[in-house]
Amino acid sequence: MTTLIALDIGGTQMRAARFAPGEYPPQEIRKVPTQNPESSPEETLFQLVESLWPADGKVAAIAAALPGPVDLQQGLLLTAPNIPQWRDYPLPQRLEARFGVPAAMDNDANLAALGEWRFGAGRGHHYLLYLTVSTGIGGGVILNDRILHGARGLAGELGHITVVPNGPRCGCGQRGHLEAVASGTAIARQARAALESGTPSKLSLHPPPTARQISEAAAQGDTLARELLAQAGYYIGVALADYLHVFNPTCLIIGGGVSRSGDLLLDPLRAALREHVMSPEYLKNVTATTATLGDNAGLMGALALAEQTAFERPATR
Amino acid sequence: MTTLIALDIGGTQMRAARFAPGEYPPQEIRKVPTQNPESSPEETLFQLVESLWPADGKVAAIAAALPGPVDLQQGLLLTAPNIPQWRDYPLPQRLEARFGVPAAMDNDANLAALGEWRFGAGRGHHYLLYLTVSTGIGGGVILNDRILHGARGLAGELGHITVVPNGPRCGCGQRGHLEAVASGTAIARQARAALESGTPSKLSLHPPPTARQISEAAAQGDTLARELLAQAGYYIGVALADYLHVFNPTCLIIGGGVSRSGDLLLDPLRAALREHVMSPEYLKNVTATTATLGDNAGLMGALALAEQTAFERPATR
Repeated sequence: MTTLIALDIGGTQMRAARFAPGEYPPQEIRKVPTQNPESSPEETLFQLVESLWPADGKVAAIAAALPGPVDLQQGLLLTAPNIPQWRDYPLPQRLEARFGVPAAMDNDANLAALGEWRFGAGRGHHYLLYLTVSTGIGGGVILNDRILHGARGLAGELGHITVVPNGPRCGCGQRGHLEAVASGTAIARQARAALESGTPSKLSLHPPPTARQISEAAAQGDTLARELLAQAGYYIGVALADYLHVFNPTCLIIGGGVSRSGDLLLDPLRAALREHVMSPEYLKNVTATTATLGDNAGLMGALALAEQTAFERPATR
Repeated sequence: MTTLIALDIGGTQMRAARFAPGEYPPQEIRKVPTQNPESSPEETLFQLVESLWPADGKVAAIAAALPGPVDLQQGLLLTAPNIPQWRDYPLPQRLEARFGVPAAMDNDANLAALGEWRFGAGRGHHYLLYLTVSTGIGGGVILNDRILHGARGLAGELGHITVVPNGPRCGCGQRGHLEAVASGTAIARQARAALESGTPSKLSLHPPPTARQISEAAAQGDTLARELLAQAGYYIGVALADYLHVFNPTCLIIGGGVSRSGDLLLDPLRAALREHVMSPEYLKNVTATTATLGDNAGLMGALALAEQTAFERPATR
């Protein structure tokens, strides 16, 4: 029996899971803080992987979901928020050198897309777009059953198209991107502005509400909170209509914390899609839905990548 | 020796070319009007292909560039402007039934992209975006050396993303798409509005200038004409910046009549690209250039498709 190890590495914590081939849930799952005063993030990661190593010593592949952009041509994690030690960091090469098994990586949004395609809301689809709407908006694109990486692995940044020219500042530094008007951060900013201008709501201005509190207020019927979610859904729908013309997918999946609002986000999203698509042909047999893997999407995507890696580069020992 | 036949079918005329394997230019090229009072478009096309048939009778494949959206899953040309007889028309199946050789089709923008990738400005690139800027704005996307078709063959409509929310009406019926603000039609409309409001220019309002006349005036230094081309270049650059984030290509090719203005369009386009990209990583080793195949891009793309078709489905006789 050969085991697969999946890693989901964030700026705050690292999670690792050990899977028997073809089996889910994992045999074991562990997590540790990414930064600690006693060891480097690399050493922390190595110890985490070691702690999960199977008794028979046989691991077919390790794959990692990473919180920043990766250059797959060069095999480098370019940057990762809150892990300054990992700039231009060759993670797969380091894992292979340390453990002697094939290793692979991708960014967490790409792997969440792969996870939903393989195990979640996207099963059976060959062309799929995944958006994670939380602090920012990340994206992953599956075309013909493969992740779209582009020339260097930087493709799939679906949150970074302009939907409001010269609009609010985006996390990336540009203006008016989808992320800047429809992410959890954007929704919280809009709530604060509305409350400051006296819009009635159950939400409190002191302290200003978080995206999660806005979702909760919306679930309880608060008008302002519902309007803010509807506006975010509208912008996401407009962007997805553009993406339908460009990618012609059959499945649109919305994940991330904001997606927990379900139809309060999705109904306006679907309405905007219908309104902005250039021909109803693009909506034929198209599913627009929420993700089903929740916080495990990245980890399950890493499992799918480990499966592919084991298949394409079988271990020689 | 087995011949390839490439077809470029437009609403006004049909062109056909016969190629020896691996050779360019064609051995023979013919064109006829698409509509004539004596025969149906299909019969006209069949006669055109017959007239090019080689003496030895050996044709490896036929491929056609078509002026409308195709459903490759069902093998149908969905619609074609000015060829009302061809709604939901199974062209490859009809050609195969009539001539007994493998046949394929794609829309002309996809095949122009493939032509530039195989024979033109995109040679050597694996990830390429092609925009044809003429009456409308069409697009084609090459990813990992293949045309992006999406689930049903409707992908690649790069002219139909929103760049000016609630902006001018687009050819597709939506508002503010790239086509609606940067196509030849849009440039001509903007010129007319500027002239009507008294903006000084060498251009005449009676009759209103065409996109070609605006290009000519720009080449001669006319300020208004240059500003209009610069604005179109700006909008195309903004859209391409979004597309860099989504596709991470290494080559951006602008074709179509408006692209003949060269740097008057491309300089502002490149400036907008630099200004709107979320990270300089996306511009590393990226070429933004004009097409080199001109009006033959579709025909040469059909040749490339015929090559692929002959390779993938070798004739059995």
